[in-house]
Amino acid sequence: VPSSRALAADLGVSRIVCVTAYQQLVAEGLLAGRVGAGTFVSDAALQLRPAATAAPPAGRPGPRRLPRERLLPEAQPWLACWGPFRLGQTAVAEFPAELWSRLLVRCIRRQPRRQMSYGDPMGHAPLREAIADHLRAARSVRCAPDQIMIVSGSQQALALAARALLAPGDEMWFEDPGYPGARDAFALAGARPIPVPVDDDGLDVAAGLARCPRARAAYVTPSHQYPLGAVLTHARRLALLAWARRRGAWIIEDDYDTGYDDGSPIPSLHGLDGDRRVIHIGTFSKAMFPALRLGYLVIPADLVERFTIIRATLDNFPGPLLQRALDQFLREGHFARHLRRMRTLYAERRRVLVHALERDLGLRVRGHRAGMHVVAMLPRGVSDRAVAIRAAQRGLSVTPLSSCYATPRPASGLVLGFGGTPAGELVDAVRVLGRELAR
Amino acid sequence: VPSSRALAADLGVSRIVCVTAYQQLVAEGLLAGRVGAGTFVSDAALQLRPAATAAPPAGRPGPRRLPRERLLPEAQPWLACWGPFRLGQTAVAEFPAELWSRLLVRCIRRQPRRQMSYGDPMGHAPLREAIADHLRAARSVRCAPDQIMIVSGSQQALALAARALLAPGDEMWFEDPGYPGARDAFALAGARPIPVPVDDDGLDVAAGLARCPRARAAYVTPSHQYPLGAVLTHARRLALLAWARRRGAWIIEDDYDTGYDDGSPIPSLHGLDGDRRVIHIGTFSKAMFPALRLGYLVIPADLVERFTIIRATLDNFPGPLLQRALDQFLREGHFARHLRRMRTLYAERRRVLVHALERDLGLRVRGHRAGMHVVAMLPRGVSDRAVAIRAAQRGLSVTPLSSCYATPRPASGLVLGFGGTPAGELVDAVRVLGRELAR
Repeated sequence: VPSSRALAADLGVSRIVCVTAYQQLVAEGLLAGRVGAGTFVSDAALQLRPAATAAPPAGRPGPRRLPRERLLPEAQPWLACWGPFRLGQTAVAEFPAELWSRLLVRCIRRQPRRQMSYGDPMGHAPLREAIADHLRAARSVRCAPDQIMIVSGSQQALALAARALLAPGDEMWFEDPGYPGARDAFALAGARPIPVPVDDDGLDVAAGLARCPRARAAYVTPSHQYPLGAVLTHARRLALLAWARRRGAWIIEDDYDTGYDDGSPIPSLHGLDGDRRVIHIGTFSKAMFPALRLGYLVIPADLVERFTIIRATLDNFPGPLLQRALDQFLREGHFARHLRRMRTLYAERRRVLVHALERDLGLRVRGHRAGMHVVAMLPRGVSDRAVAIRAAQRGLSVTPLSSCYATPRPASGLVLGFGGTPAGELVDAVRVLGRELAR
Repeated sequence: VPSSRALAADLGVSRIVCVTAYQQLVAEGLLAGRVGAGTFVSDAALQLRPAATAAPPAGRPGPRRLPRERLLPEAQPWLACWGPFRLGQTAVAEFPAELWSRLLVRCIRRQPRRQMSYGDPMGHAPLREAIADHLRAARSVRCAPDQIMIVSGSQQALALAARALLAPGDEMWFEDPGYPGARDAFALAGARPIPVPVDDDGLDVAAGLARCPRARAAYVTPSHQYPLGAVLTHARRLALLAWARRRGAWIIEDDYDTGYDDGSPIPSLHGLDGDRRVIHIGTFSKAMFPALRLGYLVIPADLVERFTIIRATLDNFPGPLLQRALDQFLREGHFARHLRRMRTLYAERRRVLVHALERDLGLRVRGHRAGMHVVAMLPRGVSDRAVAIRAAQRGLSVTPLSSCYATPRPASGLVLGFGGTPAGELVDAVRVLGRELAR
């Protein structure tokens, strides 16, 4: 490189600027100075120069298979669309946001400094008590608060359960059709989800026993099957629990959109089991709003330590602020009140949607006893995927039922969420959908 | 079971109560009614009865090995103690909590309803822009905002990188001594951390090349090695990058407590590399406070999709509220101001601690050029673990250096955090420690 004096003259700056810059570059190993011989680009820096023709990188990520690329909108345009029928949407416009803001602000103003440091990987202890109380009353779940782990939602709960309970290669029952997000979580942990058929009574336990009696776990959505919407019957709940006890298998109960059924809620599998073989998972994403990022696991007592270590290794602990606000929301009765209001609201939206689908489009509707979505069945031979792609172009986020199947020859239908869409707009959206179906 | 009439008389309640209860139990499959024959406990319910002598459950969790049980306080009493010298503690008393509360409250009041729904697995876009700007200026990291993923802290970043880059059985270089939390994250993903020695120049790259030239990745803490505190020299940075390019290996750069060095910061490995082989990880837990639960990954452009899918599968997306407040904190210059104040504060605490350790206890101190902890070396033969256990009984959270080693015959020393302890209390704590050492 030129001498610092020559460079300074060249650039029209003071020499001290150039000397300082050279010193910094020498310190960083990019230049080397030899006494009496001037300053040179170092050998190491020369090695760093990109090759003239950029070779493709030799190293790729490890060969671990990723879950089906469910997030890629090009293959699944309904996921790129946030219009009516989008699954998982809640009535955010009806959430008591003012009240929630006041609770949050109160929690912020009263935040103790010690809560700015590290926290418990299981979560904020008072919130865990409040959730244990709620679950006892609402879901017949009997557990101690220290069996409850606060997580960011049911997705994290599933990922944790998969890591804690299953070794790579372990077989498990998985509802078919089923929830792709759960299948991905188990597959990413190396487990092998074995498809078990679902009918209007929920998971077909006898088929599971015939197909894979030695499975180590079963994943079920008993309150409102995803996507078909069945409520798992009591006879099947008992048969499932009996199998799990005989085999020593785990039941992963995803209670993801409970609370919005049309009658007296059926007790959870956890409640029937008495805290032995069931890992119970719930989320506030559906009962409150998804951006809250709070959910929970109910963990059998002798597995709590195992789950804690894995949680601490995967993401340490959940932040305290929103947990504290949620604790207040539960304790002051706002949660129960909101749930009651939403039960009425969703029942009305469901009624309007089912009516329009049946009467105006002449479709058979399944899964309308509970939850925030229904399935409109299509005749076999009509491609639900083609309908969903066309609907997305019209601004409707319609999920094809076939996308939830692991086995070939799936049924054809449209999974339609109604949580986020007012009744009037649902009727309009059904009309648009009808035009697409008529084509 | 008794007839509803007999039961009602027995209990002294109205018969309708008993009839309703029986009906509910029949609906739940626990009782069965036979016409003309009364009501019976169902076969299914009998199966559910716990065995008279409770057999141990046949099924245990899958055989996957857990990381060393680093969280169990009985084995590591210094982790149960939150007194002086606790690692990872920051000066929360000095954090501008009033200002932060105002920003949070402002974000809460202006929260758009649409942000209550699902969000981007990569995180809040404006925050990612603000972090990209900060990293360009402070760490010579050049990247587009869409290469930045917001995570809950460096632990989640490590878990994600482990899943995304390494397949089970893959070998990787791991600093020895090194950060147990990182080792656990890689081990949980099935990778095989190969210990590579560390000296006062940081990771010994030549030793790594000799020991395991075909590793798929290297984990390094170049800004302030955990725990020895070395700053990785430029010569070694260049050698490490040259190896990674030759081999096509990934470098996982954990920049966990940057910003608190005693001079001009050295550019990151990512900055030297130009976004090819380096995954850069940072956290706001040290620069702000741990309960914030925000950190970031800088991901090479062609791996962004892979990381996104894994993040969506492990915990979906990060909540927006704290991200929005942090975005404001960065953009309004509060972060840079806080960092400057803390640099001075920590430099003073470091100076006082090092002085007391050297002068009063006559110990050799390592790793005091940067960061929020130092290491006081003990003579070989003195058990740092025994000292740490005694210190914990005196309320000091002293981490034994030997606990950070993977290989046998570790060095003996005390890893001492000073971030959370005012200078005056550090002097007192050193005095207490001295008495324990003298025993």
